[in-house]
Amino acid sequence: MTVSPPPVTDAARQDLLACARGDLTCDLVLSGGRIVNVFSQEVIEADIGIRGGLIAGMGQYRGRTTIDLRGRYICPGLIEGHIHIESSLLTPHQFARAVVPRGTTAVVCDPHEITNVLGETGLRHMLEMGQDLPLDIFPMIPSCVPATHMETSGARLDARSIAPLLDLEGVPGLAEMMNYPGTVTGDPEILARIGAALDRGLVADGHAPGLTGPELQAYCTAGVDSDHECTTLEEAREKLRAGMYIFIREGSTARNLEALLPLVRPETAHRFLLVSDDRHPHDLLRHGHLDAILRKAVRLGMDPITALRLVTLNPAQRFGLHGRGAVAPGYLADLVVFDDLSRFTAERVFKNGREVASELQPTERFFPGAEERNEARENTIHIDRERIDFSIPARDGHIRVIDCQDDLLLTNEALLKPTVRQDLAVADPDRDLLKIAVIERHRASGRMGKGFVRGFGLKTGALASTVAHDSHNLIVLGTEDRFMEEAVRLVTQSGGGLALFTPGRTVTLPLPLAGLMSDMDLKEVSDRLDALDALARDAGIRISHPFMLLSFLALPVIPHLKITDYGLINVDRFTPVELWHRNSA
Amino acid sequence: MTVSPPPVTDAARQDLLACARGDLTCDLVLSGGRIVNVFSQEVIEADIGIRGGLIAGMGQYRGRTTIDLRGRYICPGLIEGHIHIESSLLTPHQFARAVVPRGTTAVVCDPHEITNVLGETGLRHMLEMGQDLPLDIFPMIPSCVPATHMETSGARLDARSIAPLLDLEGVPGLAEMMNYPGTVTGDPEILARIGAALDRGLVADGHAPGLTGPELQAYCTAGVDSDHECTTLEEAREKLRAGMYIFIREGSTARNLEALLPLVRPETAHRFLLVSDDRHPHDLLRHGHLDAILRKAVRLGMDPITALRLVTLNPAQRFGLHGRGAVAPGYLADLVVFDDLSRFTAERVFKNGREVASELQPTERFFPGAEERNEARENTIHIDRERIDFSIPARDGHIRVIDCQDDLLLTNEALLKPTVRQDLAVADPDRDLLKIAVIERHRASGRMGKGFVRGFGLKTGALASTVAHDSHNLIVLGTEDRFMEEAVRLVTQSGGGLALFTPGRTVTLPLPLAGLMSDMDLKEVSDRLDALDALARDAGIRISHPFMLLSFLALPVIPHLKITDYGLINVDRFTPVELWHRNSA
Repeated sequence: MTVSPPPVTDAARQDLLACARGDLTCDLVLSGGRIVNVFSQEVIEADIGIRGGLIAGMGQYRGRTTIDLRGRYICPGLIEGHIHIESSLLTPHQFARAVVPRGTTAVVCDPHEITNVLGETGLRHMLEMGQDLPLDIFPMIPSCVPATHMETSGARLDARSIAPLLDLEGVPGLAEMMNYPGTVTGDPEILARIGAALDRGLVADGHAPGLTGPELQAYCTAGVDSDHECTTLEEAREKLRAGMYIFIREGSTARNLEALLPLVRPETAHRFLLVSDDRHPHDLLRHGHLDAILRKAVRLGMDPITALRLVTLNPAQRFGLHGRGAVAPGYLADLVVFDDLSRFTAERVFKNGREVASELQPTERFFPGAEERNEARENTIHIDRERIDFSIPARDGHIRVIDCQDDLLLTNEALLKPTVRQDLAVADPDRDLLKIAVIERHRASGRMGKGFVRGFGLKTGALASTVAHDSHNLIVLGTEDRFMEEAVRLVTQSGGGLALFTPGRTVTLPLPLAGLMSDMDLKEVSDRLDALDALARDAGIRISHPFMLLSFLALPVIPHLKITDYGLINVDRFTPVELWHRNSA
Repeated sequence: MTVSPPPVTDAARQDLLACARGDLTCDLVLSGGRIVNVFSQEVIEADIGIRGGLIAGMGQYRGRTTIDLRGRYICPGLIEGHIHIESSLLTPHQFARAVVPRGTTAVVCDPHEITNVLGETGLRHMLEMGQDLPLDIFPMIPSCVPATHMETSGARLDARSIAPLLDLEGVPGLAEMMNYPGTVTGDPEILARIGAALDRGLVADGHAPGLTGPELQAYCTAGVDSDHECTTLEEAREKLRAGMYIFIREGSTARNLEALLPLVRPETAHRFLLVSDDRHPHDLLRHGHLDAILRKAVRLGMDPITALRLVTLNPAQRFGLHGRGAVAPGYLADLVVFDDLSRFTAERVFKNGREVASELQPTERFFPGAEERNEARENTIHIDRERIDFSIPARDGHIRVIDCQDDLLLTNEALLKPTVRQDLAVADPDRDLLKIAVIERHRASGRMGKGFVRGFGLKTGALASTVAHDSHNLIVLGTEDRFMEEAVRLVTQSGGGLALFTPGRTVTLPLPLAGLMSDMDLKEVSDRLDALDALARDAGIRISHPFMLLSFLALPVIPHLKITDYGLINVDRFTPVELWHRNSA
């Protein structure tokens, strides 16, 4: 674990020491506040002297500038332990503008989505886009690109390509090892990926939903020592006992805080983190980021200083982020000033000793313009639209239909008689039977998977999206082939994104960065999503978040029937299946 | 922090996974015991499956060998966080034979004493002597060799020579930075030593007795983040708040557990360690090692699992000792079986899955013979006895006398009229005025400091020792010069050691390894010390541990008057002073 704080020159170190001793005037003094001390689990009234972006000391200090914080709580800047920034649909720059004013000053992220599209280049784009922001972004190296062998991703990362990435500056380790079956059975390639991290003294995060008993023990012997997939107290307790750090996830898709909170006792709190995993634009805008999780944790009865430890000192320790996660001499002056320890309204946020946000608004001069940050703006939507053919010739027998139930990511397989017109199996909105397709979009191979889906309720039109886990091919569904073509046109012309086409109206959210991220700000993205949802309702869609559900229909690791550019996938048998079921009753 | 567990081959990893899954028979199963889980702070009944020296899993396991541990407590092997092994007067080999049967399986040591004598060579000797033992020895790199500029040591370590030593396998960081004044004032050489550790992601231990307020804040900004010198609750609280790990010391010389124990709460326990610092042979033999500290902690009211965490998981985490400090899958099978959690009698000790001690006795075959371990047996006593001249010509005025009070390390300066015989100032046992000298012994320079000491009570004879902190020159005191010469002869002929000469009887404890360590076993060393103490009492000495006190009379960092080969040292003014005080009243 070797993520060092930014280097300090000898002269700056001498100045810091002189300030600490009281022999030199500090740059800034935060006076009279109530400092939350995550070491002694106390609130202490003292001044904080800051010099050169670092905390010189706590006590009585003189500063060139003094800010009176009497009555306010000064906490360490919040540290996110596990998030996919891409889930916000924002660039790191816009993400920072959204979360820093909420008190977040560092993020350990898993750039799994962009890496599936752009490989190592995507990872480097994330690093570049994250530079010079008042938010420290520490990327874990994605462990499972592609997620399965039943889809075409934009890149492949094996142990040999992962190893040098682990040596990049600021990388704390290997991101969630989702291939837990391969780990448990000892797939040499998988073990080599984990070993590449451990051999460097780095960590390997886990992802093992429901894994228990001997298989869990085996997963842990491989050196994976965290998990953010626990949903029940029993599961979390078993993983805690096995030596895993428990990342309690409270994100936009999955929320486990209420279920797991009783496990966090004063004696065990040092083994827990609070993390987001994903955070959608609406949640970011309306509720915030880690501040929202803190509010909920305290409302559910967690001691506030303990809750703060779970998003400050604990992630810093788990990921070896030296000099972060506490208010202490020599630590980075990453601080958030809260009104109290129940509402957690971030009144001021300091990064490296500079006030980078106040009253929930970013201080613009610390967030350099988005136009300078377009390194990743190459087009990643490689589709030859001339070759797209959505038609499905009719055959004898029934069709396998992906059966959705509202927002559940779990789907069923329904065997239905197709609606046939002119020897073609077609969508039939009257039966809520829509056509769905996944088009490979990384190298214009023309490869397509086609099928049918039930449960959306769309009456006329088509939805298309280049956010389609985990390979992020173009997924599209609709009531007629020509509408689907229109929706595909909309997203390809935007360089990727979300689009809803109806004969009268269309709404598009362009995501030109890898087809995953907008460069609009949070409010604009959120408004556009609202417009998409509103049009979706008008078009008859009954699902609350149709694009969210759509993005998971191409993920062949959630049961039971999914679709990739390889075609329909039977997740239980982990193999492609034919659309046509000939022997059905 | 990069101390990895021993490498595991791919085949061994596969076997471990298979054992964890239950597909392969374990080497050893410990069945039915009560496992102390330091993550969940619980006691859990389960089998432990062990394969290739590692824990495969907890649950139900089959083994080629099974040991029934029903009713017994299985704890992680104990980890010492800070000790000078030399304080035991034992070689690492004999030290291991003494502490492993007490449950200790790993030691973070500061080889400060041998490094003062032999420099880098001494450090490497310690590493070599510690190899192939059922005790993992992790040496910190001494930060202050020599301790001061007012003495001649056998070696000097500066930042440039420290840097490559920090890169040695198994080194967790820089040992206690005793030069806290130099750190606080920003001495570039001192900061460079600390920086050398931090730049490598290693830790820097502290040593700052009584440091408080702005100076403490400054010390911490330099990156030192532990302290084992706290003696009061207030001192420890302030250091805890400043971000230091608090090593509660309960050694042979200093005992701080009772004073500091109230600070260890469930919420703060993760910031504390229990350490020995030093451990003399008598204490090792009669009371044990960390097991003795555990007994006392629990007797004083500490929760037993918390107490265990302070000597298992916490030191492992503080020093980055991966795969150690807990009973968990993939961890080293370093385990101690206690009868209960109050007596802490170590009934069995397992190292890397092998039973290396039982019933407080080492299993001999795991402790290879001492005769193979004499790499360090070169003579380090370089004295030209022909050049020794203890005589002190008389002058006018008074003499400065080192005034001792029983075992207190703190001495006073007494101004006394000398006893003069034939124009020489001489010892005068009737006034309890003994002559004392420190003879440089590293390069036979002939340099000597001479003076007088009061408080020992010796009637006839002389004491000599090559254990004399921190430079370990030869220190000798006596009632007549010729007796002092005899005592010097005894220790030099032994290659170093402790000797008490009286006209009728002598006792010697040879310490041929650097003049610091015996190669006898604990019982023999302890018996010899008993004999020394008995003879000392017979010779009139009133001090309980005269050789211990003697060893500190040459340490010029404990007030007020000390003696080195440079002569008498006024510690308060940190400068040598004349023996003769001419203007005295």
